Parts: sequence; structure tokens; C-alpha cells
Amino acid sequence: MINKNKYRFSREFEKTDKRFSIGERLVHGNEILIIAGPCSVESKEQMLETAKGVSKAGASLLRGGAFKPRTSPYSFQGLGVEGLEILQNVGKKLNMPIVTEIMNTELIELYSEKVDLIQVGARNAQNFDMLKKLGMQKKPVLLKNGLGTTVNEWLMSSEYILSNGNDNVILCYRGTRSIENATRFSMDIGAIVVAKESSRLPIAVDPSHAAGRKEFVKDFALAAIAAGADMLEIEVHNNPEKALSDKEQQLSIEEFGELMDDARVVAKAIGRKIRKG
Amino acid sequence: MINKNKYRFSREFEKTDKRFSIGERLVHGNEILIIAGPCSVESKEQMLETAKGVSKAGASLLRGGAFKPRTSPYSFQGLGVEGLEILQNVGKKLNMPIVTEIMNTELIELYSEKVDLIQVGARNAQNFDMLKKLGMQKKPVLLKNGLGTTVNEWLMSSEYILSNGNDNVILCYRGTRSIENATRFSMDIGAIVVAKESSRLPIAVDPSHAAGRKEFVKDFALAAIAAGADMLEIEVHNNPEKALSDKEQQLSIEEFGELMDDARVVAKAIGRKIRKG
Amino acid sequence: MINKNKYRFSREFEKTDKRFSIGERLVHGNEILIIAGPCSVESKEQMLETAKGVSKAGASLLRGGAFKPRTSPYSFQGLGVEGLEILQNVGKKLNMPIVTEIMNTELIELYSEKVDLIQVGARNAQNFDMLKKLGMQKKPVLLKNGLGTTVNEWLMSSEYILSNGNDNVILCYRGTRSIENATRFSMDIGAIVVAKESSRLPIAVDPSHAAGRKEFVKDFALAAIAAGADMLEIEVHNNPEKALSDKEQQLSIEEFGELMDDARVVAKAIGRKIRKG
Amino acid sequence: MINKNKYRFSREFEKTDKRFSIGERLVHGNEILIIAGPCSVESKEQMLETAKGVSKAGASLLRGGAFKPRTSPYSFQGLGVEGLEILQNVGKKLNMPIVTEIMNTELIELYSEKVDLIQVGARNAQNFDMLKKLGMQKKPVLLKNGLGTTVNEWLMSSEYILSNGNDNVILCYRGTRSIENATRFSMDIGAIVVAKESSRLPIAVDPSHAAGRKEFVKDFALAAIAAGADMLEIEVHNNPEKALSDKEQQLSIEEFGELMDDARVVAKAIGRKIRKG
Repeated sequence: MINKNKYRFSREFEKTDKRFSIGERLVHGNEILIIAGPCSVESKEQMLETAKGVSKAGASLLRGGAFKPRTSPYSFQGLGVEGLEILQNVGKKLNMPIVTEIMNTELIELYSEKVDLIQVGARNAQNFDMLKKLGMQKKPVLLKNGLGTTVNEWLMSSEYILSNGNDNVILCYRGTRSIENATRFSMDIGAIVVAKESSRLPIAVDPSHAAGRKEFVKDFALAAIAAGADMLEIEVHNNPEKALSDKEQQLSIEEFGELMDDARVVAKAIGRKIRKG
Repeated sequence: MINKNKYRFSREFEKTDKRFSIGERLVHGNEILIIAGPCSVESKEQMLETAKGVSKAGASLLRGGAFKPRTSPYSFQGLGVEGLEILQNVGKKLNMPIVTEIMNTELIELYSEKVDLIQVGARNAQNFDMLKKLGMQKKPVLLKNGLGTTVNEWLMSSEYILSNGNDNVILCYRGTRSIENATRFSMDIGAIVVAKESSRLPIAVDPSHAAGRKEFVKDFALAAIAAGADMLEIEVHNNPEKALSDKEQQLSIEEFGELMDDARVVAKAIGRKIRKG
Repeated sequence: MINKNKYRFSREFEKTDKRFSIGERLVHGNEILIIAGPCSVESKEQMLETAKGVSKAGASLLRGGAFKPRTSPYSFQGLGVEGLEILQNVGKKLNMPIVTEIMNTELIELYSEKVDLIQVGARNAQNFDMLKKLGMQKKPVLLKNGLGTTVNEWLMSSEYILSNGNDNVILCYRGTRSIENATRFSMDIGAIVVAKESSRLPIAVDPSHAAGRKEFVKDFALAAIAAGADMLEIEVHNNPEKALSDKEQQLSIEEFGELMDDARVVAKAIGRKIRKG
Repeated sequence: MINKNKYRFSREFEKTDKRFSIGERLVHGNEILIIAGPCSVESKEQMLETAKGVSKAGASLLRGGAFKPRTSPYSFQGLGVEGLEILQNVGKKLNMPIVTEIMNTELIELYSEKVDLIQVGARNAQNFDMLKKLGMQKKPVLLKNGLGTTVNEWLMSSEYILSNGNDNVILCYRGTRSIENATRFSMDIGAIVVAKESSRLPIAVDPSHAAGRKEFVKDFALAAIAAGADMLEIEVHNNPEKALSDKEQQLSIEEFGELMDDARVVAKAIGRKIRKG
């Protein structure tokens, strides 16, 4: 389907796995990296408490949404620049690289300076203009698939970044819209496996958005590891019932700890390891 | 599903159909307006010849892509600002308002000045930041649904524009990604009918992108009119075999003329009219 | 996609439209035939009153479910053989050929004798064994597409009937399961248009099951006619609020009359006619 | 969505996992059972060689298609009763219970006598009449989901069997039709996890049909185990290149051995075991 030779994301362009480091954490090595943190940055206290919890449980990178892409304009839209600063401060304090979503090209300069891993969300997965500009800056990019995009389109979106000069791209699968309504999205193992086979880029998986319900997140995460995920991104909140967004799908710190324990055993079974911190 | 009272797109906000004019053409009146023109602006000659053809056949607005959202970064990306100028000149010469897609917020000022109807394509249908900024300028916006968005999400995207101050929004249905592979996308009559019932905004339909093959475009267009579409957007090229993009789905000027003839009869059957020019 | 030459459903097998008659009504001629009647046969009174209503409004064939395929085993499963007899008696009284769904091969002999047009529902659209056996009897078959089948698979299902000796098959599109949840199923115009282009068989459309809500049925029906449908199958009940199944989607007799009035005008616009009775 | 109390498949009907034995192999215990064998029974030699191979590698049950549901009537339809006899003889010789698909109700008596686990395929997943009759006989049933059915509908199909008196049902997930075209079907981890949470029945997974390509089958299988599958059904052929059906997705005996080795390690990681034979 894809003429793989000509594309920079492909194994024909470079046979070896693409590796790079974020704050001394090697991406796409044998160690699986865990990104954890709340859906939205809500306050300094919330962020600090959550970060301490996930750090202690072994997460390597800290996530938190400052600018939030919400279906409705009347839903909480995030704390914006203030949220970004809280995230940055907490990340520094705990020595965790930070991951947060970008929603427009005007923020690229700020993000390039302050954010360690710039996330492109599902809604902007084919915002080609933003992808081009993210290709012209240096910070690594975590690129989610679109709600209704195919694997081929997702890989082609990564090409917009790669072909503009930035080779540090992580593909992050967050589930696909489907005919099923029992979960928020479908987590199609095929998408992970095909992306891994076709591409030299590291593959992350976001089981939280796929599942949409906290009681399913662990099983989704274990399946993703078994299928070959190189990273996981998990939503964790110090007090999920009080979360300002996505409250059904965020794990408590304790639940995240249990997920990490099980993830370590499954990773070991397939000859890998979960990086600690 | 949607609590319609609080949303500006809804009939509960305002019972009457939202109407406004673009270059003296009334949108959402009894007359159906036809947008026609090539997928991409390729040259002055191509644009002028196509515009003359579609104008003569009765099209009211002229489309042409200057900045093109292509799945691959190596496909033709459009002529950019030069293409926009060609489109503008040809539109003026033939007294046709122009429609073209916007791909980033930095172009909003330019588009607000030069474009009569600013199109938001499927890939940016949930680029909320761009939608907000399009709400803060005055030109009407044609908002396509995303490849994998539901009707509810599409309506909510319009709310981002409406709630920021711009009440002149046209919803344009361009087909949905589905399990079927015999056409490029599925043209779900339900999406048109539900949008029309839930919203006071005018509904346009783009049969060209849904069908993906020129031989199906006319039947899709007639079905859209029968289902209640207020506008159609049709891809037409003066020489489709030589088109630089979407060559399979662009009609010749002659084929467009035949479509218009049939469209007039079906419109009349349901008590409406196709506006001439 | 399909190598059309070798398949009996295809226009390569026979260029001309496949025509045949059911009770002196010509199928696939210029006249569009309307099938109407309740979801389920519930009683002699309900059936007779409904049949009189739809007959007066111009329907050509009478439908009614005797054996009902319900998602839950605890939902009303139909009156069975008793329902079939009621349907047959009412059909005879009003001189309307009858259409009803078959759910197992053991009923084929009975149906071959009593039913004028044997319907295969979505759930049995790939029950290949039943299709083969329906190919070995003489009565015409109305074959619905499966909830999750492609057009190609649907056409191939018809081949099971045709290749076993029965050439009188009507393809009936009843909507497709999709990512959209605002309607019960998606009515993809492409499915109708592609089936019509690929196949010499008549195409019926069932807007009632696609829409799932009575207020949408008329617009779906008009769109189907505009797209080229040769028949429509519409659920009508003499007292929809009291219906034992699918109560949201059945039209009243009055609503059906309005649909017929509009259908006549749209049919005329495309050079066809709705057969009266 | 489902009012779980009233349904026999649900954990509200019975809190404990439903367990039963097939030829002394306990289903739904801590041990995961592996079903393996060719897509189609093609000959005594093929069946015997394959069975020896999968048995040695640890498979517990032997599969082989005698009656084959093929999209096209012109594809190989299976050896029928002769195939069933070959399968039965080979199963006896190697002391492996046999699993094969049933395609019509007339075969139920024969299958009840000769087959240890009666498989209902995707195309008959909502053939309610057959499900009812399978509920009236004693042999366990392996019920696949339909191509386009939801988890809710799949569970409701099991209820047709359970409510008619047969409590020995295994739910087998074989992938879902989706918008993705890089694999044959999507293997949605959510379907497995939701079925497991909602139902007391054992959950099998068929990674072969979901993947559609042999190189993906192992990763799909490991993910299924990590997500909680109680059984796997894997297509294995002694000479896949020569297979009469589904040649792209059948593993060689050697590849199956490698899958089993990895499956054992992943099963152990989550506190389970693959049963040996």
C-alpha cells in the first residue's frame, strides 16, 4: 500500500530502530518508557501531588494538558500558559521531562523552549501546516493518530515532520473510532503491530483515551506491551473524582502503581523492561 | 444527546433558518447555491476556462484550492498565495464570490480580506484554535465535517465559530470514513438530515469528495438535494485528465452542465430552485 | 475489485437490466414499486387496516414480519406460521403480493408456496446455506445487505442464489453500521449507486431501518429515489405508538401517504414513476 | 446499556466464572486452552500431519473446516461430511477434541454426535434460529462475533443459546470490520475486555482471522492473552503455501511452535498457564 522506500518513517529508509533521548531517557531502546500525569493541569498542588505519585511508581515522563482540545467550547479549556508553567516547574522539581499538547502554530516557539516532548493530539493529526512547522524545530514530537485516520495516513502525517528536518518523532496510538460503543474508542492491536512493522519510529500507546473507563486501562496497557509498544501514556490524577476533564478514565495514583507492577512482569515476559524513572 | 438549548447552532437558540448573503447571493433561502471549480488552482488559464464554464452552467460561487491539505508531503501542495491571487482575479472578472480552504491561523488576516467564503477542510474540522479565530473575523465560514467525526462533534465545531462572534457559518458534509471501500467515503444521508433537523445553519454537501469517482458524483448530488441540501460544492476542471490532484473525481465542464440540468429538475420537485449564477 | 465477467449479478453477464414480475407488477421497469406494511404482523385487524391504508396510498406489495430476528431472545419473536397466514389472507383480500422474512431453511418449502417475495434479512445476509437453498426454489428473493458487509460481499451473496438457479433476486439496501450514532444505521448513497452500476439486478432501499426514526424516513426515501432506487420498502403501522416492535421508525398511514405524494414528484423529476398499486 | 440482571450470560446471573470440560480439558480455569488446525480439512494426510504438529507443540483442541462459509460461491466450499469424518478420525487418533463450524440447522444432529465443540462463525452470529436449536442440544458451542456486530449484540446472541438450555457457551472474538484496511479486521482489545467484564462465559480469541496475515498472528495472540483471553484459536497448516483457503494467515507448524513458546511466557506473567495438550 505504501511504497516504503521513499518515506523517512519507513524501515526501508533506515533499517535500524530510530532512537533518541529525552532528558537522558533513551526512547526505543529495550526499556519501555511510561508517560503519566493528569488529563489537565488544574493547579500547582494537583500537579505536584500527582507527579510525586507517578514518579515514585516509576513513570519516566510527566504529562499534563495546558491547552485542551474539547469537543465543546463551553468545556474547561485548560489553564493555558499558566498551566504550562506549573507543569514545567513541577517537572524540574522532580527531574521529569514534560509532555504536553500543542494546539496552534503560534505556540511552537514557546513549546520548543519549555516542553521536552511536544504532543500533537488526534484533532490535529492532519493539521499539516502545524506538522511542517514542528518539523522545523528541534524538540521531539509525540504524534497521535486521528480519530478516523488509517495507519497509512498516520504514518504519512509523521512524514510531514520528518521531511522538514526533525527526525525525533514518536507515533502514539490512542484508539480509533469504530462501530463499537462499549468503549470510548477501539484499541486495534493491528494498528500498533502494523505501525511497528512499517516504521522505524518508536510506537507509544495511550490506553486511557482508547478505553475511556478507568477499569479497562490496565488490561489495555498490558495488551499494548504484549503487542510491542515502546512507550505508554497513562492519565493519572491525584483525585480522579474531582478532575476537571476526563474523570472516568483517569487512574488514581494507587491504581497506577498496580498497573506499573503488572506492566513490569509482562514487559519482562517479552524480554523487555519498564524503565524506572 | 445534545442539549440543544444552550448551543448557538441549534434551532432552540433561534427557530428560524439562519440566512445571510455572500456577494448578493442569499444563503439558506429557497434557492440552492452551487459552488464549483477545480480541486486546485493550477494556472490562470485553467482557472479562467473552468470558471467561465461553471459560470455559464449556473454556478454561483467559484472554488479552487490554493493551499492543499495532502496526505503525503510529497504530493502537490498548491500554488499558495499565488493561487489565491489567481482565484481572486478570476472571481472578480466573472463576478463570482470565491471559496477556498484555509490551513493555518496565520493566513486568517489575508483570507478575511480576499476570500468571500473561507473553507475549513475535514483535516482541520477539530482544529479548535483555528475555529475560535475564524469566529473573531467577519467572513462567512464553510465548515466541513471531519473524516471520523460524528454529527454531534461537527455541530460542536461550528459552535467554536459561532460563540466567538461570527454567526455566518455553513455546515458542509463531505462524507464519512466507513467500513465500505467501494467509494472514497460514505455519503450518509442521515448526517445531512440530522444536521438539518438539529441546526438552524445552512447545510452544504460535497458529493465529489464523498464519491471519489466522477461517474458517481451526479447521483450523489441529486440525492443530497432530495435530502434537503441548501448548497452543493462540486469539483470541476476544464481538463480533468490533466488535473494535478483528485483527477478521478473532477467533472468536466460538460458533465457539470448535465449535473446542473438534472439538479434543477430535482430541486423543482421538492419545491426549491437552483440559483442561476 | 470484482472481476465482473464471471458473476451472474453483473452487467458483464447480461448488459440489460434484469426484469421480472411479481403478481403482475413489473420489477425494474421504469415504474418504482413500493413495499409497505408493519414491522410485525400482530393481528388480523392490525394487518387489514394497515394494508387497506397503504394500498389506498398506492403501495404495490404488502410486507409484515411473521418470524422476527430480534437481538434479544426475550423480545417479541413474531406470530410465526399464524402471522404468515394472516399476511397471506390480507394480501389476497386486497390483491397485494406479500413480502416476509425467512429465518431458516426448514421454512423454505412453506414460503415457496405462500410468499410472493421472500425476504432475507441483514442477519442472514451471509447465511450461505440458506442462500443456496433459496436459489433452488422459484420464488423471487429480496436480499438485504448485512450490517457490516461491504457492497462486494452483498453482491457475492446474491451470487449464491443466482448460481443455484434462481435469477429473480432484488438487492435491498437497509443501511450500514457506521461510526455515526445519530441514526440507527448509516444510509450510504454510495452503496446504492455502486450496486446499481455493478449489477443488473433491481435495487430496493429500506429507509425505515436505516433511519430508525420516523421523522427521517421521508427524506431518506426521497434521496434513495433520486439516487436510482427501483423499489422502496417502508414500515407502516395503523397505530405506530402501539407497535410491538420498531415503534420509533414505523410511519402512520397518513405519514405514509405524504411520503408517497412527495415520492411521486421526485420520481417524475428523474423520469420515472411510482407504480400505483 | 445491557440490563445485566436478567441475562444468563451476565455476572449478575451467576457471579462465578462459568466452567465446563471438553474431553477432560477444563475451560475457563486458570489454564488457557489452545485450539489449532487448518482453515479447511483438505485431506487425511494434511489433517494428520498438521494435527501431529500442533499436538506436539501443545494445542489442546483440533480445528478444521469441513463446511466453509466463503464470500464467493465459486471458492472452495469444504469437503463437507467427508471432511468432518477425516477430522473426527484424526482427532480420535491423537486424543484431541475437535472443533468445526456449523452452517445449517440440518447438520445439528450430526454435529451433536460427532463434534466436541460446535463453532458458529461470524456470518451466522445472528442466525437466531440456528442459535436457538444449538441451545436445545448438549454439545458446547463456540460463538464468534459478527463482522459488524457490537459486543452487546454478540452477548445477546449467546443468550439465544443459553436461554434454550445449553449453558456451555464460549464467546470467541474474531475481530471487527472497521475503517482500517491495513489488516483484514480490527482486533479491538476493548471487545475482549468488555465481554470478560460483562459476562461469566469464557472468552476465546481468534487472532488469525483478525490479522489476516501470518506475520501479525503472534503479536495479536500475545496481546489477547495479556488482555485476559481464556482460549485462543489459531489457524495452522502443514504446508501453508499450498492451502486451499486463507493461505496468507495460516501459520506453519514451526511458526505455531514459536507462538506457543512466547504465549507460555506471557501467560505466566499474568499468573496463568497454557495447558499442554
